[in-house]
Amino acid sequence: MRVARARYKNWNRADLTYAELDEGTAVAGVFTQSACASSEVEMGREQVKSGSARALVVNAGNSNAFTGYRGREAVEQIMQQVAEHLGCDTSEVFVSSTGVIGVPLPKDKARDGVAAALSAEPCSWEDAASAISTTDTFAKGAHASAMIGGQRVELVGIIKGSGMIAPDMATMLGYIFTDAAVEPALLQQMLSTANRETFSCITVDGDTSTSDTVLAFATGKAGNAPLASFDDTGADAFAAALTDVCRQLAQLVVRDGEGASKFITIRVTGAASDESAHRVALSIANSPLVKTAIAGEDANWGRVVMAVGKAGEPADRDKLSIAFGGTWTARDGLPVEGYDEAPVAAHLKGAQIDIAVDLGIGEGRATVWTCDLTHGYISINADYRS
Amino acid sequence: MRVARARYKNWNRADLTYAELDEGTAVAGVFTQSACASSEVEMGREQVKSGSARALVVNAGNSNAFTGYRGREAVEQIMQQVAEHLGCDTSEVFVSSTGVIGVPLPKDKARDGVAAALSAEPCSWEDAASAISTTDTFAKGAHASAMIGGQRVELVGIIKGSGMIAPDMATMLGYIFTDAAVEPALLQQMLSTANRETFSCITVDGDTSTSDTVLAFATGKAGNAPLASFDDTGADAFAAALTDVCRQLAQLVVRDGEGASKFITIRVTGAASDESAHRVALSIANSPLVKTAIAGEDANWGRVVMAVGKAGEPADRDKLSIAFGGTWTARDGLPVEGYDEAPVAAHLKGAQIDIAVDLGIGEGRATVWTCDLTHGYISINADYRS
Repeated sequence: MRVARARYKNWNRADLTYAELDEGTAVAGVFTQSACASSEVEMGREQVKSGSARALVVNAGNSNAFTGYRGREAVEQIMQQVAEHLGCDTSEVFVSSTGVIGVPLPKDKARDGVAAALSAEPCSWEDAASAISTTDTFAKGAHASAMIGGQRVELVGIIKGSGMIAPDMATMLGYIFTDAAVEPALLQQMLSTANRETFSCITVDGDTSTSDTVLAFATGKAGNAPLASFDDTGADAFAAALTDVCRQLAQLVVRDGEGASKFITIRVTGAASDESAHRVALSIANSPLVKTAIAGEDANWGRVVMAVGKAGEPADRDKLSIAFGGTWTARDGLPVEGYDEAPVAAHLKGAQIDIAVDLGIGEGRATVWTCDLTHGYISINADYRS
Repeated sequence: MRVARARYKNWNRADLTYAELDEGTAVAGVFTQSACASSEVEMGREQVKSGSARALVVNAGNSNAFTGYRGREAVEQIMQQVAEHLGCDTSEVFVSSTGVIGVPLPKDKARDGVAAALSAEPCSWEDAASAISTTDTFAKGAHASAMIGGQRVELVGIIKGSGMIAPDMATMLGYIFTDAAVEPALLQQMLSTANRETFSCITVDGDTSTSDTVLAFATGKAGNAPLASFDDTGADAFAAALTDVCRQLAQLVVRDGEGASKFITIRVTGAASDESAHRVALSIANSPLVKTAIAGEDANWGRVVMAVGKAGEPADRDKLSIAFGGTWTARDGLPVEGYDEAPVAAHLKGAQIDIAVDLGIGEGRATVWTCDLTHGYISINADYRS
């Protein structure tokens, strides 16, 4: 990894990240479903189809979204510049951008930044995680390893994001690198599956970015027998490690949610289906009244009832049960008479909040992660200049 | 109208409202679609089918939602007490409750409160509007009149609500009284139509109440030839007046949105259909990032792009145009070069904000109303005790 200062904003920090990847690196990706996706997302979606990658460039401070043909030209320039340097195909150079929407990425700054990065000294994962960040308050990375047929493989991931986070459909900017040898089609299947259980289960503010992207790169340098199907030896272990890294990264984004003071886990059980449970859980996680109640350390389960009721999913008021930190405050549609408020109050004063909701009508279950809604979110977003 | 102090909360104000209605009064209603609706809503939905009403009782300070059989018993007690007093059927007594969720309405306080209201002096519409309120900061009422075949009829409405407002599907607590003679079936049709264009077009926080209700009562005392169909003379005028009152009431709720400092009108045109335009408009209106940008007086149209993109509706990034206060800041998927920022900045400093979005792909259009998201909303809802 290498970083440089393209000075996309008036700041004194690295804001362009470059990762060179070995020949033969497999790539997989998941992207935002936004109807207003950036050129980077549109092009990346096409590029992953070839399954092959040689480089990654990430611009921070300018998302280059909603910038029309001029935005696209800037991306093509970066791809060309790197492809010439490496002697590879432009389709093997992946570009992401994050930051303000609606300002075309300045081509001159991009050209100088890429040139500086190509000749820079290698840097640490943490430096790269910092260079891809915008409103993040800390650098976010995760690691896991797996054994594939006697060969140990490593996975490292970095991610950025703390606002405009509702990857109901895809994700924010995240990159996972592994030395395992994995065929692109299988890597894509594994990443899509991991995405559904991790990045798709977090929300900060219900707002979905135009630039959400997660890419996984597998260089194959570990020397394991290449994985081509879920039946191959070690495929399960690798998929579990990949999901583990994705879950760590996803939860780090929520922990750094704009203005967040508490990390909230919402478990929904007894739903008509897993999909229904997921939608009910997100309805609770995205409710400003639930999120402000948690910020106020108030066990206001009435607001949880409201959020279940508005989800548009099958539910029966008289079978609904709600618990905070393991203490049931409502059971089968009625407040629990004389429940012990002390452990609930103590739980709500903590930084890790657990809300459990049992719908009592089926076997569907889901878990999502979110944060509370505080004055900090308002301050960050009412003052942020476009 | 009569009001009394049931003291549902520890406060020094009237919190029980009673309206006696003439014999032969027609009634129509629209209710929340919440899967966790209160007993009042469930029973009201059944009662309107008969089309006949003699009284309305509104409890403020306790929503009686999610209280199981005990909540239902309290409603039945109120219906019986009033029916005995009037010598009418219990099904002709409509009850609504608003306030905290999950605490059964205390039967003793309800009994004493209803008894006090039955013997109270008549009060003004404004007193009644105050007595049905909870976190509202002002009493909300509206008036209109219409000519039906040479006979002037009057319509008066009162409403409460400022948080947990996302009547995507129905409404908050609102009551419209008219002396017109209108058959119940037609009144219901007119109210449902008006609801779609008014209450269903507002949102404060995207959270839908368990108790949302709007009832329209037509006493027939004006003496007009009863309206039975849209073809009758004066039916158009009456429907327009009814919609007018509903729109006034709906907009008053948004103006009193919790913590609101600005009233925002969002007009979406050029959508694939009117329904699609409505969903795009609500996606913008419910976006915390758009709402905080307006609070910060920032013409951050990138966040509007984001909200269009996440709506899940047909849109083409390269045909999208966005205006603030009539000034186009983005046209056909590109920022407008060198647009005059001065009128936009001046517009955003005002209290009435207009956002226009043209999707450029069809003829669908919709307008919704919302408010900004400020520190006030957090203060109100993080401190409100359950």
